[in-house]
Parts: sequence; C-alpha cells; structure tokens
Amino acid sequence: MRYSALLTDLYELTMLAGYHDQGMHERPAAFDLFFRNNPFRGGYAVFAGLDNALSFLEDLSFDGTELAYLESLKIFKPAFLSYLSDFRFRGTITAPAEGTVVFGGEPLLTVEGGLAEAQFVETALLNIINFQTLAATKAARIKVAAGDATVLEFGLRRAQGPDGGLSCARAAFIGGVRSTSNVLAGMQYGIPVRGTHAHSWIMAFPDELTAFRTYADQFPNSCVLLIDTYDTLKSGLPNALVVARELKERGYHLAGVRIDSGDLAYLSRQVRAAFDEAGFPEVQIVASNELDENVIESMRREGSRIDIYGVGTRLATCAGVGGGALGGVYKLVHMDGEPKLKLTSDVAKATLPDRKKVLRAIAPDGTFILDLIALKDEEILPGALVFDPANPVQHVRIPEQARLIDLRQMVMKNGSRCAPTPDLESSADLAAQQLQLLPEGCLRLVNPHIYKVSISTGVNTLRLKLMNRVQSKYRN
Amino acid sequence: MRYSALLTDLYELTMLAGYHDQGMHERPAAFDLFFRNNPFRGGYAVFAGLDNALSFLEDLSFDGTELAYLESLKIFKPAFLSYLSDFRFRGTITAPAEGTVVFGGEPLLTVEGGLAEAQFVETALLNIINFQTLAATKAARIKVAAGDATVLEFGLRRAQGPDGGLSCARAAFIGGVRSTSNVLAGMQYGIPVRGTHAHSWIMAFPDELTAFRTYADQFPNSCVLLIDTYDTLKSGLPNALVVARELKERGYHLAGVRIDSGDLAYLSRQVRAAFDEAGFPEVQIVASNELDENVIESMRREGSRIDIYGVGTRLATCAGVGGGALGGVYKLVHMDGEPKLKLTSDVAKATLPDRKKVLRAIAPDGTFILDLIALKDEEILPGALVFDPANPVQHVRIPEQARLIDLRQMVMKNGSRCAPTPDLESSADLAAQQLQLLPEGCLRLVNPHIYKVSISTGVNTLRLKLMNRVQSKYRN
Repeated sequence: MRYSALLTDLYELTMLAGYHDQGMHERPAAFDLFFRNNPFRGGYAVFAGLDNALSFLEDLSFDGTELAYLESLKIFKPAFLSYLSDFRFRGTITAPAEGTVVFGGEPLLTVEGGLAEAQFVETALLNIINFQTLAATKAARIKVAAGDATVLEFGLRRAQGPDGGLSCARAAFIGGVRSTSNVLAGMQYGIPVRGTHAHSWIMAFPDELTAFRTYADQFPNSCVLLIDTYDTLKSGLPNALVVARELKERGYHLAGVRIDSGDLAYLSRQVRAAFDEAGFPEVQIVASNELDENVIESMRREGSRIDIYGVGTRLATCAGVGGGALGGVYKLVHMDGEPKLKLTSDVAKATLPDRKKVLRAIAPDGTFILDLIALKDEEILPGALVFDPANPVQHVRIPEQARLIDLRQMVMKNGSRCAPTPDLESSADLAAQQLQLLPEGCLRLVNPHIYKVSISTGVNTLRLKLMNRVQSKYRN
Repeated sequence: MRYSALLTDLYELTMLAGYHDQGMHERPAAFDLFFRNNPFRGGYAVFAGLDNALSFLEDLSFDGTELAYLESLKIFKPAFLSYLSDFRFRGTITAPAEGTVVFGGEPLLTVEGGLAEAQFVETALLNIINFQTLAATKAARIKVAAGDATVLEFGLRRAQGPDGGLSCARAAFIGGVRSTSNVLAGMQYGIPVRGTHAHSWIMAFPDELTAFRTYADQFPNSCVLLIDTYDTLKSGLPNALVVARELKERGYHLAGVRIDSGDLAYLSRQVRAAFDEAGFPEVQIVASNELDENVIESMRREGSRIDIYGVGTRLATCAGVGGGALGGVYKLVHMDGEPKLKLTSDVAKATLPDRKKVLRAIAPDGTFILDLIALKDEEILPGALVFDPANPVQHVRIPEQARLIDLRQMVMKNGSRCAPTPDLESSADLAAQQLQLLPEGCLRLVNPHIYKVSISTGVNTLRLKLMNRVQSKYRN
C-alpha cells in the first residue's frame, strides 16, 4: 500500500512553503519523536510501526493528482509546487527496533535532514508510530494478563476504520497477540488467521446440533463450536459433546468450543469439567466478550479454565484509562549546529535539547536497571551520575557492574534503509524477552513500578543553560 | 481506494465455505445492522459511512493474489475457491441517508440477499459504519457544545492509523465539524482544509517576531499566528499585535491567533481584550489542546472568547465515556421466508425478528416525537399502540396529529446503487436540521433525555411468539 504524500496536516505544507520561500528548506535540522507518559498508566510501552514509517519515507512523493489538488487550494506559489514535484525524503532516521520496550520521555525516532523534509514528515510518522506503539502495548498487557493462554485478536469490526484493524493486527502481533481473525492482516503480514462461525450459522439451520454437525463435517481438523447461541450449559455443551464423540469415531478430534456470553469464568469451569469427564481433555475452551487485560486477570484469579482468549473491541481501539491515543509529539531539537529547546508552562516538561542517544543499563543477570538519555557524543561509563529530568537536583549513579547498550541504531540514511528489517516474529520475540527483563512490578496492570528514565550530566547541563537563556529573554 | 475483499474475519469465509458446500449459499436471508446503546451515553447518534459501505459492496471481488493467499491456508476446497473467483455482492440494502439522527435499537442497514453474500459482508460493513457513525456523533456533540463557534478537526497525528484519520474527517464533516487539517481528506472528500504553523516554525527563527513576520509575509491573506511558544501574554500577544499593525498598513488583516496551552478560557479573554483595544476586533481566536465537548461547554460557560476550536485527539479517537467504539452488531432476522430471532441471556436484549421498517412520528411543528420499528408490510397509522422493546407491557399511542415518515430507503438493489448519493454537504445539513428537531434535553451531554424508540404490535407479538418457541425448545 502506498501512503499518500497528502497524509498530513495542512500546516506541514504551509511551513514547508515558508521555509522554501525563505531559502531555509535545506538547513540542517533534527527532530525527536517521543511520548511523555506510558499509555494505560502502565509501566512500559512496546515500540512498533517502524517498518511502515520507513516505507512511508521511502515512497514519499507527490503525484500529479496531489499536486493539482494543492494548486487548486490557491495558497501555494508555482515555484513551491514545482519544488514539491521533485520532493523526496533524503534524511536519516535513528530508532529502536520494533518490539523494544520503551518508556515515556525517551526519543524514539530521531529524524535528521533538511529543515523542510524533516518537518514535513511529522504528521505521518506520528500517525503511524503513535497507533502501532499504543496497540502493541495494549496487546502486551493483555498477553501478560493471559499468562500461558493464547490470545486471538478479532477486533476488525469495531476498529477505527479499515486500517485501524490492519495496523492493530500487525502491532498486536509484536506485542504478543500472535493470531488474528483479520484475513487481510494474514495476507499482508503473514499473521496466522483464526476463526470459526457466528451465531447466525447456528440460526441458519433447523437446530443447533445440525448446525454443529455440518460445521464439523466442513472443518473436521479445526472445528471450534460456538456454544452459547441458545443456552450454553443446557444446549450448546451437550450438543458439542455429541459432536466430539462423532468426530472421535471418525478419527478426528474436536478442537474447541467458544463461549461468548454469560459468566465466562463460571461457564469455563463447568464446560471444562464436562469435557474432562467425557474423556476429551484436549478440547480447548475459547472465551470472548468485551475482554481486556483487567477482565482476563480477574477471571484467572478466580480460577477460570480458558485456553484461548478472543479479544476484540478493547484491543482494536486500545480502550482503557490513559488509552485511546498515544500522546506522541515531534519536537525540533537541533538546527544549524545549535541545540534547540521548547519550553512549556510546566518547566519539568521542557524538551530535551540536542541530538541524543538512549542507553540502557543492564545488570549482570540481564535485567534492566535504568535508561539514560545522553548527548549523542557524550561518553557515559558505569558509575556515571544521572539526573531525574523532572527534578534536576535528584540524581543517582549507574551501578559500576552495569553494562550499557545503545537502544537505537541508524535505520535510514539519505532516504534509504541502511539496516536489515527484522521480520514480525523477531520483533515479537524481542518484546517478549524484554518484558521478562523489566524490574519486578513494571508489568503490574495498575499502579506499576515506574522504571527510571534519567538524563546525563551533558543533557541536564545543556537543558538548564537553554532554559535560563529562553526565560531571561521572554519572561522578565 | 479499493477495499480488499479480505477485509474480513476468517469466520465469514469459513461460514461461506460451509454454506456453499451445503448448497445453502443462495437461500434468501436478511440481516439487520444496528447498535444497542447510543455512544457516549448520549441522547442520539448521527448515521454515517453509507457511501463507503456501498462502494465496498459494489467493488467486492477476490483478485488473484487474494485467492492465492486463501488457497495457501489449506482449509478451503477448490470448488469453493472457484466459487469465490466469481463472487460478487448482488443483494439489496435498505438504509437511512447519511446524516440521519438515529438511536440505539433501530435497524440501520438491512442487508437482503443470498445467505452467503449477506453473511459475508458483515465484518466490513460493521467496520465502516461503526466507526463513521461514532465519529459523526462525536463531532455533533462537539459542534453542539461549541454553539456558533467554528470547529476544526486536526486529529490525524493521533488517529488510529492513516484511515482512522481519513474516515474521521469525513464523518466529522457530516456531524458538523466542517473543516480539517487533513490534506488527504481535503483531496478525497472536498472538505475545506485549514492550518497554520507549529511551535517548531517559531523555533526555526532567531526570535518570535521574525518568525511571525515571515509567516505573515508568506500568507498575508490567511495568517494565523501561534502565540504560546514562549509566553502567550508577555511575548506572543505583543508580537502578534505588531504583525497585526504591519499587515494593516499593507492593506491586509491578521486572520487570527492560536493558543495551544495554559488556561484557554482566561487567555482568550485577555487576548480578545488586547486585540479589541488595539482596534482589531476582526482577529479571531483559535484554541486547541485536548479539547472535547465537555471542555468546550465548560469554557463557554465561564465566558471564554474563542471563535474557533481546534479539536484533535479526542475527536479522532472518539474518546469519552461510552466512546472508542460503537457496539454495532449484525444479526440474522429472516431466512427462507421465516423470521429469525437471537435470544441473549438478557431477554430484553433479544433481537427484533423479521424484515422491518423504521418510522419516525413527527409533530405538526416538525419536532420528533418518537421512532417506531414495525414489520416491513405492517400498516401503521397515527393513534396506533406502540410498545417498549425492553418491557413489552409498557405501551403508549402515537399522537393522532403525528405525521409518520419512513427513515430508510432502498439504496442498493441487485448489487447496484439505486438511489442518488447525496454529497457530504447535504448529509451535514440533514444532521444539523435533525438535531434541532429532537425533543428538548436530547442534546444534553450528560444524562440526556432518552428519545423513545418503540416497537409495533406486529413486531412485539412476533417477538414474544418466537421467544416462547425458542425458550420452550432449549430451556426446559
């Protein structure tokens, strides 16, 4: 799929026109893309969307229809439209790998290039990275809550538009939800697709047993029966038991049953007991109906017997406290060789100026100790003093025995990918590994442990200096 | 844009395969698409998405790549794949016009056709209609709260994927938010696009005044200055006043200023007073920053002086209590000449069987009295008794002086559109008119008056009969 170059806010184009007219469009600039707070008031986020973002950048150009539309707006000069007809992104992108566990305040993408190109891509990059990172994080929370159970994403019908469903399936895979009902996501991203039948299948036959038998005949190797159309325990369960016996006689086995209403925890225990008693311990129980990480955690706590959670609406729309949208922003941090800082009314929220790197301090046992945002060329060694960005007098030392790794790498140079693109499976594996290495309590769904994200002496000093300079200029 | 035929849940395809194999695929069936509760716990919804839904149906076919992918899944028989290669939607769609104000429980789309085709389109129709109706409703709530002020949609960067932004801009227009920052939405749907510059524009210049002047030089006819980069009242406002004077000397006028942080209500009053005092009453004040209908209502109540509200994240993601997703469902209501009913554990939520019509009773002054769901061929006259679907013993009479109109019409027949497609402007006008005709209190943001949606004697009697039949079969 080609992303249109017009997938942008008009103000990116008006600014671009202004920079072009002023001859400023090629002046060197750097922007950071980051979010301030972990989504869902949680302890982490899972970075996703990079591959799509890079595809957007690689393909970025204005076609004839798009240029004609811009001309019709009658706000752009011919010289600018002619510049746009040759416009390409030729900048540099530094980013973590998809699946990396990241935290509020850390630069995710750093975009370096001419002022015009680096500014212009803001809206599309935010759109792609914000939603996929949000969805990967939601999926990770759900998978963590589900423990060893499988989670299936099937939110397409409630997703925010066709692509909401597609992007979500991709990001959810990275977060740990490794199958989907979305057939297009299956084709486009190679995600395993799953599905059985709806209540309407049952209603299309004279009775439930006939509907079950017909479905089992069709898919004897992968038959999952939806047992709550009429009455889960009085009708669906006994009929499913009949079909389980019939399949067994024919050398197959019933793959599972799905419960989509009622008290899922209670029903799952009853259904489990009935299948076990009848000699079908292999029949899996699928549950669905407005599930999310909180419902799953609470059902597991009370001893539900669910093997597969089908999660729809609340995953597809990233619902929940602090959910719905990731508040990613895109800020100018460097231009013409000078660091740049954006103040806000809350001083603790002033941006981190200059081009930077993100280091992770790792303990000898592999667990994560803290992340550190340092200047790009600043030397950081174990033992170094690091500061709390919200409170510059608070500081700690990186433990001497820690190992420091750079979380990001250059993935695009002069507009072309310059690093291999990992497949989705690797990204999902990376996320699963990293989630296990977080400090205890970071995975907690509510009021989690807050992982420490610090800034280096270099960033702290530069930021204070620039804050004083801006404040003395504008606030006296 | 072509919607892929694979924009669907796998279970639609497994059911389709089953119906095809059983020779049931052409048996006549009818499905209703509806939602149960008004979104945002509000008093209404604004129907949107129909044009896109009809485009999906018109274009629906499986191309070679899609068929090859389905074959690779190794769950479908060759005869079925061959059937799919010729598959088209040839059914009939009955629906309200986009922009119609609708309510929980009312059939929106009724899809009639062969069992296979009518079932297959479930997921895509829900995806398209659910999100656009939700977004149109959110936009209507925001526009109602904003009163005569203009609302601008600029949520693309936080939308749920590229299409989340595009669909939202379209639906928001229908709901009353008639401009967007989204350039692609401008090109694709003819929606007026608006935009100015970001904080980074200011930071790219040596100082704020130079940045303002440069922008005003570029766009002297439509210059809106963002005045909160350093300090709204001490820096942005005085600099904007300088530019306002300079533009005036050159025969132009400053279009507006935008405030994006701080206490927007307070700042807007200060900024208004300063521009008025300086002789610039025409300069408009644009405000933005996490706005939604509740914030807007409360700022207006305390006397803010805002002319244009820029609404981003919370509109684009349809945030809010009871928001995020519209719970639209798709239920079999008729097959082989027989009405069908789906029971749920909550009897009041049993579906309404059979093919139906939705009538609106309108008072002589044009205001809406109640809606009525009746059997398709049932004669309903003013004075008729109507029933509460959640409580079949509750009933009232349609006032004798009421006029009854049919809310829906056939818009697609044998797979082709059979009614003119209104333009977006007409749909937005329809929504604006209808919102004014609702009973008082329906527009209230919190705890609104609940508009009455009733069922006819025919629907009530048939539903009770079928409920008894199903219950005696499955629950004894």
